[in-house]
Amino acid sequence: MPTSDRTDARFSYEGLDRIIHERARLSVLTSLVSHPRGLAFPDLKRLCGLTDGNLSRHLAVLQEADLVSLEKGYEQNRPQTLCRLTPSGRARFLDYLGVLEQVVRDAAQAAGRPQNAAGHDRSGLAEPV
Amino acid sequence: MPTSDRTDARFSYEGLDRIIHERARLSVLTSLVSHPRGLAFPDLKRLCGLTDGNLSRHLAVLQEADLVSLEKGYEQNRPQTLCRLTPSGRARFLDYLGVLEQVVRDAAQAAGRPQNAAGHDRSGLAEPV
Repeated sequence: MPTSDRTDARFSYEGLDRIIHERARLSVLTSLVSHPRGLAFPDLKRLCGLTDGNLSRHLAVLQEADLVSLEKGYEQNRPQTLCRLTPSGRARFLDYLGVLEQVVRDAAQAAGRPQNAAGHDRSGLAEPV
Repeated sequence: MPTSDRTDARFSYEGLDRIIHERARLSVLTSLVSHPRGLAFPDLKRLCGLTDGNLSRHLAVLQEADLVSLEKGYEQNRPQTLCRLTPSGRARFLDYLGVLEQVVRDAAQAAGRPQNAAGHDRSGLAEPV
């Protein structure tokens, strides 16, 4: 049977922070990183395609992990929550993105999709470079 | 308060298949896509950095979803399981990778990290291009 000649956990991706990696939270963090001044709850909900309950639950997890801050304020005399990445949240998200980029590179390369700038097509080759 | 002027669920990433996206299963699928002839259970376990129990559990989920096949065979007269991506598993994984690449592009761009081949640095700008 074919065996691998690697001895390390080549594809374990330990750096994929489980709090960030969850799909809905990934949506939330990507939305927030593109709005540094923060987003009101209804706008964040719309950008992420989440229900009130789901977004609230995920924001609680992110706030508990000090990735986002939730500030109560007022918009046109109505209470509104402003959601924003914390400085450490932004730093951790950028770290996570670095690992995600590695996943994409590994998998695309291994799947034989052309990734090399010089145009080398590795389709059909079993072993990654 | 700052609001978004988008009305669509710009960052919902519906295409991030939940079965594939789970971190350990992402490790398994990336390992398998780089070994088209399949991997023996112990080698897959090592590449992914998973315990016997965790790997078995995740393989069961992937098999149920017809993403991988598990073939019982023998290696040096000892029973061994060969794990391999199914054809539909490979196709779905490549689709998933396409969405993941989009996530990486969106987030990197929004985070202000230089991504443009022409070298435009968008650091500090709130709105993505």
